[in-house]
Amino acid sequence: MSQTAAQPAPETTDLKPRDMANAIRALSMDAVQKANSGHPGMPMGMADVATVLFKSFLRVDPSQPEWPNRDRFILSNGHGSMLQYSIMHLLGFPEMTIQEIENFRQFGSRTAGHPEYGHAAGIEATTGPLGQGMSMAVGMALAERMLNQRFGDDLVDHYTYAIVGDGCLMEGISHEAIDLAGHLKLNKLILLWDDNKITIDGDINLSTSTDQKQRFLAHGWNVYEVDGHDAEALETVIAAARQSDKPAFVACKTIIGYGAPNLQGTDKVHGNALGADEVAAARKNMVWTSEPFVIPEPITKAWHAVAAEGRKAREAWEKARDASPKKAAFEKQYATTLPENLATLMAEARAKVVTDQPAVATRKASEMALGVINGATEVTIGGSADLTPSNNTKTKGLKDITPGDYSGRYIHYGIREHGMAAVMNGMALHGGFIPYGGTFMCFTDYARGAIRLSALMETRVVYVMTHDSIGLGEDGPTHQPVEHLAMLRATPNLLLFRPADGVETNEAWEIALTEKKHPSVLALSRQNVPTVRTGDTTENRSRKGAYVLKEADGERDVTILSTGTEVSIAMDAARKLEAEGKKVAVVSMPCWELFEAQDEAYRKSVLGTAPRIAIEAAVRLGWDRWIGENGRFIGMKGFGASAPAPELYKHFGITADAVVAAAHELAG
Amino acid sequence: MSQTAAQPAPETTDLKPRDMANAIRALSMDAVQKANSGHPGMPMGMADVATVLFKSFLRVDPSQPEWPNRDRFILSNGHGSMLQYSIMHLLGFPEMTIQEIENFRQFGSRTAGHPEYGHAAGIEATTGPLGQGMSMAVGMALAERMLNQRFGDDLVDHYTYAIVGDGCLMEGISHEAIDLAGHLKLNKLILLWDDNKITIDGDINLSTSTDQKQRFLAHGWNVYEVDGHDAEALETVIAAARQSDKPAFVACKTIIGYGAPNLQGTDKVHGNALGADEVAAARKNMVWTSEPFVIPEPITKAWHAVAAEGRKAREAWEKARDASPKKAAFEKQYATTLPENLATLMAEARAKVVTDQPAVATRKASEMALGVINGATEVTIGGSADLTPSNNTKTKGLKDITPGDYSGRYIHYGIREHGMAAVMNGMALHGGFIPYGGTFMCFTDYARGAIRLSALMETRVVYVMTHDSIGLGEDGPTHQPVEHLAMLRATPNLLLFRPADGVETNEAWEIALTEKKHPSVLALSRQNVPTVRTGDTTENRSRKGAYVLKEADGERDVTILSTGTEVSIAMDAARKLEAEGKKVAVVSMPCWELFEAQDEAYRKSVLGTAPRIAIEAAVRLGWDRWIGENGRFIGMKGFGASAPAPELYKHFGITADAVVAAAHELAG
Repeated sequence: MSQTAAQPAPETTDLKPRDMANAIRALSMDAVQKANSGHPGMPMGMADVATVLFKSFLRVDPSQPEWPNRDRFILSNGHGSMLQYSIMHLLGFPEMTIQEIENFRQFGSRTAGHPEYGHAAGIEATTGPLGQGMSMAVGMALAERMLNQRFGDDLVDHYTYAIVGDGCLMEGISHEAIDLAGHLKLNKLILLWDDNKITIDGDINLSTSTDQKQRFLAHGWNVYEVDGHDAEALETVIAAARQSDKPAFVACKTIIGYGAPNLQGTDKVHGNALGADEVAAARKNMVWTSEPFVIPEPITKAWHAVAAEGRKAREAWEKARDASPKKAAFEKQYATTLPENLATLMAEARAKVVTDQPAVATRKASEMALGVINGATEVTIGGSADLTPSNNTKTKGLKDITPGDYSGRYIHYGIREHGMAAVMNGMALHGGFIPYGGTFMCFTDYARGAIRLSALMETRVVYVMTHDSIGLGEDGPTHQPVEHLAMLRATPNLLLFRPADGVETNEAWEIALTEKKHPSVLALSRQNVPTVRTGDTTENRSRKGAYVLKEADGERDVTILSTGTEVSIAMDAARKLEAEGKKVAVVSMPCWELFEAQDEAYRKSVLGTAPRIAIEAAVRLGWDRWIGENGRFIGMKGFGASAPAPELYKHFGITADAVVAAAHELAG
Repeated sequence: MSQTAAQPAPETTDLKPRDMANAIRALSMDAVQKANSGHPGMPMGMADVATVLFKSFLRVDPSQPEWPNRDRFILSNGHGSMLQYSIMHLLGFPEMTIQEIENFRQFGSRTAGHPEYGHAAGIEATTGPLGQGMSMAVGMALAERMLNQRFGDDLVDHYTYAIVGDGCLMEGISHEAIDLAGHLKLNKLILLWDDNKITIDGDINLSTSTDQKQRFLAHGWNVYEVDGHDAEALETVIAAARQSDKPAFVACKTIIGYGAPNLQGTDKVHGNALGADEVAAARKNMVWTSEPFVIPEPITKAWHAVAAEGRKAREAWEKARDASPKKAAFEKQYATTLPENLATLMAEARAKVVTDQPAVATRKASEMALGVINGATEVTIGGSADLTPSNNTKTKGLKDITPGDYSGRYIHYGIREHGMAAVMNGMALHGGFIPYGGTFMCFTDYARGAIRLSALMETRVVYVMTHDSIGLGEDGPTHQPVEHLAMLRATPNLLLFRPADGVETNEAWEIALTEKKHPSVLALSRQNVPTVRTGDTTENRSRKGAYVLKEADGERDVTILSTGTEVSIAMDAARKLEAEGKKVAVVSMPCWELFEAQDEAYRKSVLGTAPRIAIEAAVRLGWDRWIGENGRFIGMKGFGASAPAPELYKHFGITADAVVAAAHELAG
């Protein structure tokens, strides 16, 4: 099937868009019916819109689904996944076979309940948690404009289209995303709203009275309205939206489940199979005589003709690319190729920390590492959710990205942590950039929905989370993370770094950039910490996740485990204990996930067999894995308080003396 | 000072509102200066607005700060906490002494960096994480309307005022809150926007171009605009806003740091002390000759006169209350008094589960428990973020709350998990209701910011989180929580229940309602589970957090620990092992936090000394505390997948056979 797109376009003049759309409807209702699980209403309701969009505007090439200048298509209301799968099948995406459609929502299929990035080329993002897709689309549209300005129309000049539902527009993240997109004038972003007036609970007016068109106007968008079942009107309105000087919002009035004669327009078609009777009635209503999962040849041809247009566009682009003097630079950027000497540069910078920085806040050390990185590569794109001076995310010379001028490398995301995270995901998915963005560690909470998607999609984004404990002091418990380290450690595929000092901060940055399949969170301090990793820093010791920072002088009496700003407290405690004649090792554990991935022999050699004490200014949850049943944990038992940091450490008993006392209990 | 408000109003005719406002400015800049930490810009910028608001409209009584019908005041941009503390001090709130003001941001003071609920009567909510305060204000305004409709104007008829900043309005949660408030026509809610054009990163136009007034109009609000430094204009506009038939948004054009002549209007005054020179310059500029923390007598008198008006209003209300035939009913409702026979009713319902429900999904069991509860009391208010039919949150006969009719007990929160959680917090803080609300467990992520505040403020709200594991099946990994149990267990003061069956679900509900100082999360299953708690169910065994569900027949060879839907798998495994002659105990652990609170002897008796195996369809983080160093954990190692649930359990190895195999490894 992957060859089909190469054939000359067949005669399809007698087919109407509605016929092509009915193929989507049939596949969707039949797949949901077979799985007895899924959401037929949205694909059936939006089939006409999607047909016109793909037929006349959206350029993708099933034979090369990852062609850089393809238009991006995001199904933000991901429960309507059969819309996307149907179209991909009809266009001839090689992985989206009819068997996959028949195996909708079954184990191991590419056709998961919601579109999953990585399951099949052509799925541009994982969606399902509402609002995420449209927010990632903002990131993609921004990446497109940034690459366009760097490399010109010949190399990058495409649209980003997202279909959004009522749920997407109700979610808070939608506000953050559209506010930013309107501000940045991302005029090649087009949202198509499935305005069907129905949600799971029933009629949309159960829960909202918002005038969405007025809302988008307030945020600097151009707004269009159209009957979502009128192909000609759709042609006109999408053509107009493509000419917009602002991001475009197209309200498509649709009937949910359109085609199912007895249930359409009701919440009954939203999240349930239609049932055999209604499927039969819909067949009759649509005059669709094929068996389930069989597409009539003329309709297949018509869809393949669309794919052929995409192929032509891709081939034309390749010619332009090959003729461009910027080809090599573009390819390097698009592949986010890091400089070959990055490891050397980082090691040099580590050595400098040791010689020049007896003490430094790790947020400041992060800025120093970023200075090296941002100077050595063009692929990093910084930003902060309005905490630039606190997060230390803007290195010298980094120019702002502003409305209409995308040549800079720094984004003022505004007070929008969730939007920032989703936009970073979108940029990473688009290609061309490694985004990093900062906020306070505590506001990981606000960005949580998108951080989880970073982990699930394996996007290489870096979260610069400063003010990582009670060490931030006076702002008090609303701003003091205590449970957030555990939250992030519990999240699969995410690397959480809590570096002890400037050296480990540098190491964390190096790993975050080179681990292509993992998002990273850097938990950084507001307050100064002494540099504890002195001596030779050539090797990136954080790569193993944990290591013996200070070995005992002889067989260990006790091992102290710690992370971040408490490592220097552990070192103090070790000195005190050694003054008493104890043999003490200190283990720094900047990244549990990497340590867990080491072999058991290494882990055992680090943890040792002596009694263990852990110290971390956070809750205990998770530490029992490392301290064992008889270990001790020194940390937080509840929320923090508002006071200068040193008083808080004392009040909460996170001190060298507490470690010494615990060591006495354990080892006499 | 608490008596002052009782004095007759002094002569204050020669004082202008600006003089009263300058007292706020002086206290704020001096307190921040002394702490060398904090945010003077907002209190100085909004001092005029706040002065007019309190002087002419907002009715509170420092001598009885918790009078039910007081107006509610929320400082949503909580970093401007000195505005609130200054006003409370000036009005004469007894706990807000000048010593507290002088100890701003110091350990143990009531004047934390951000307003903390519980630190001093008069602080209505903890704010600081932006957007939360205004969203809680929506909940308070809704609770007011609900009580008003139940008990009439004599007993409940007050305004809810919130001051909001640019950050509040950029956060996604603001969208969810204003959308809901506009829909529900909460016309006694008034937001006062500190429209100062400055954020931490600099000018507001670095990150937004939104027309806020048009935005609020789109959401069904009435919108007003005023010079925030013109007292007369403020009088007029707030008076108009109070007559609004919709919630009111008042854009107050202000100059941040107003009064500090060299720094006002810049980001420099946002989050830093002004410095001694600028404090001196501001004194000169304001013609403020008092020493720091000294308020001139006429100004004190003027503010106390305002307090006296509040006292009069409170006394008038008390008379009306005492004359009302609804007094007793109101007081019972306002205190959220639960029926005396609740325990009996719940125990009876448990017995019914045992006799009538051999197997039931715990979400369905939750509906059954709620049926009993909602029938026995009027204080519970249900809702769901558009997943009513999935969360089973709407019991028979529960009427919807609709725009303009607040007599019902069920809220269609829309697809707004974060807003729902914050609104629930607001209702709980207001008094009169115990709110519960549902969504999918995975979307705990979206509500996370407000859930944390529930825990920090100790609000009694109940989160009904269904679809709590891979057991939800086909929706796939975006909808399957794996890390969320750990996240919630890591959060201090939160009770996470993962009940094993219908009996434990009933117990969880009983505890959630009776634990007044804890929010609860109920993690409930989509799929059916067998009832494992057979026999006598009189005692609420979940109160101890964990208990021996099935003791071994003799000295234990192995103990199996589990929660929720995996408890029945543990029971299956126990049966298999017993068939081999092993002695096996099964421990159900529905609530770790309550178990942790038991004495060590009880905990040891439950866990036993035999090798332990835990089984839970979630990540391991946290389990090592209970299984010990040589224990085994059977659960998830990463994200889930899309497929029917039984296949997923098999694929991920969460089975009785896996437990049996682990038992063989541990105990031969």
